[in-house]
Amino acid sequence: MPPKSRFISLGEAQKPFFVGVDLGGTNIKVGLVDDLGRTLSHLGIPTEISKGVEDGTARMGRSVKKVAAEAGLKTADIARVGLGSPGEMDIPTGMLVKPVNLKGWNDFPLRDKLAEQCGLPVTFENDANAAAYGEFWIGSGRDYKSMVLLTLGTGIGTGIILDDVVLQGAHSCGGECGHIIIDCHDDARLCGCGGHGHLEAYASGTAVIKRTREALDVGRTSSLSKRLADGGKLTPKMIAEEAEAGDALSREIIDETARYLGIGIVSILHTVNPEIVLLGGAMTFGGKKSALGRRFLQRIDAEIRRRALGTCANRTVLDFASLGGDAGYIGAAGVARREYRKLGQK
Amino acid sequence: MPPKSRFISLGEAQKPFFVGVDLGGTNIKVGLVDDLGRTLSHLGIPTEISKGVEDGTARMGRSVKKVAAEAGLKTADIARVGLGSPGEMDIPTGMLVKPVNLKGWNDFPLRDKLAEQCGLPVTFENDANAAAYGEFWIGSGRDYKSMVLLTLGTGIGTGIILDDVVLQGAHSCGGECGHIIIDCHDDARLCGCGGHGHLEAYASGTAVIKRTREALDVGRTSSLSKRLADGGKLTPKMIAEEAEAGDALSREIIDETARYLGIGIVSILHTVNPEIVLLGGAMTFGGKKSALGRRFLQRIDAEIRRRALGTCANRTVLDFASLGGDAGYIGAAGVARREYRKLGQK
Repeated sequence: MPPKSRFISLGEAQKPFFVGVDLGGTNIKVGLVDDLGRTLSHLGIPTEISKGVEDGTARMGRSVKKVAAEAGLKTADIARVGLGSPGEMDIPTGMLVKPVNLKGWNDFPLRDKLAEQCGLPVTFENDANAAAYGEFWIGSGRDYKSMVLLTLGTGIGTGIILDDVVLQGAHSCGGECGHIIIDCHDDARLCGCGGHGHLEAYASGTAVIKRTREALDVGRTSSLSKRLADGGKLTPKMIAEEAEAGDALSREIIDETARYLGIGIVSILHTVNPEIVLLGGAMTFGGKKSALGRRFLQRIDAEIRRRALGTCANRTVLDFASLGGDAGYIGAAGVARREYRKLGQK
Repeated sequence: MPPKSRFISLGEAQKPFFVGVDLGGTNIKVGLVDDLGRTLSHLGIPTEISKGVEDGTARMGRSVKKVAAEAGLKTADIARVGLGSPGEMDIPTGMLVKPVNLKGWNDFPLRDKLAEQCGLPVTFENDANAAAYGEFWIGSGRDYKSMVLLTLGTGIGTGIILDDVVLQGAHSCGGECGHIIIDCHDDARLCGCGGHGHLEAYASGTAVIKRTREALDVGRTSSLSKRLADGGKLTPKMIAEEAEAGDALSREIIDETARYLGIGIVSILHTVNPEIVLLGGAMTFGGKKSALGRRFLQRIDAEIRRRALGTCANRTVLDFASLGGDAGYIGAAGVARREYRKLGQK
């Protein structure tokens, strides 16, 4: 589905309607979608964590009403709201427990409070799971029955969908594959979560910057040094630019990242064995449209083919996600739609 | 459920009846169980791989009829047969593809051929998945909704059950967690499957023997040396005996094995996040009844608590499996029962 058709007007839309809320550490995205996942209206607001969770919840509630109004609908025309939130959380009870990226928003019944604020039933989900469900519903995963999405950004978020069901796990820790262990040694890299040897500590944006800085610190020659001397800030984007301009170190760092991701993905394949694995997020080096992005994907793919068992090495599809930053709210709306339909069957 | 009540007579049994076949590289176990998973009769025959797959299938078919007769039933009294087989396989089509431990039994429609031989419908499953389903149905996993079993033997077999469903995966490679990668380095240990850094290459019986031999070869002092000089064969059992007698190296090897298993299990938790993880198979160092077994479990547990994320670190249950070598045929019968019930609902 080309991105263009993802946005439609009310006249073309198919009932029922759902609103998805993608709660992040910096921004909150809210979008109204129809029964086919097409967006009628959407908005973004800053999270402003420091104002507290009550204030944030009230603003989320108002945003839900606002996207409805902007699409020419009443709040009551919304069948259900979906909310994707960062963890730690308890999905069945709709509780924020101790969300790392929402400092202070602890032990709060977010699902029920948002339902109060907007007067609509709310389905609660992990944000990475919601994004995965979005890709599964109308994105790059739409033609498959099982899918894993890795969202590569500051960290690595993952979501696993098996037969239209989000793998939430017994303690809301399903699909936390950024924290699978790829290095069992005592000197393994330290992850942001405090654990050692996690995939995220090797292949996230943060890790890419760290590994690059280490290489520069030991005196590796690179065009990055000039960029930094000129006052530039080391980012995956800068590394990508220099790699495209032919810098050997930058290319090496990206290739190594692909290798680590391939290794991590093999462990995921040998556990849940999905039909397709998708890569999304800010750190996909330009994705399919860029030679560097295609090289990145190809390197990960080669690592998987080389390391995975028989049939799953041959048949697992690897691709980029296609919904970009909208996957979160679309998927949140999607899990709301799924629960709406499930409740309707009863 | 104490093992005693796992075996009953026809008078106590509850219909319908199922037969489970556990096909292994050395032996085939066949058992008839009732609707509660209790065994009425069972037998074991050698696999005799060299006689070929047609011969093996015919003998499995006769064994199905034999366990029925031994329990005082006709073959037609059996509702369905379950067959657990080693891979590589294709579960949906019931095909053996290229089973590593059944040399030459390649590309064979085992499910349908066994159905012909015994005149009964057959459900096909991976052997490790079947064993996991057995523990889930009537063993240590019976009070839980999601479960992972690691069967520690020559290799490491695993099976994942989520809400009464075996996680078979898109290419019958679900729950192949012996082959998750715990060491991403180029010099990582070589697995029997040809891959590098797999859990099985660190924590299986084969790996334990190899690591012990390496330690002895570099001159580590150990009471094992005397046992070997006396003509003994190095086995996990011998290592367990010397560990119990106080040998430091043997203890160290077992503790290291626990550490590797803990690391591998954390990756499994951060992917599927089950309620309970079970350890079964020949290499559990005496299990719950032995101080060494309890120490082994405790060490794995400590590694998990130390490394896993929040709630799943606190709440995941770790325990030993309870069905021993019978888990395979019981679970095979269990998956047959599950399919029988599912078909009945249609």
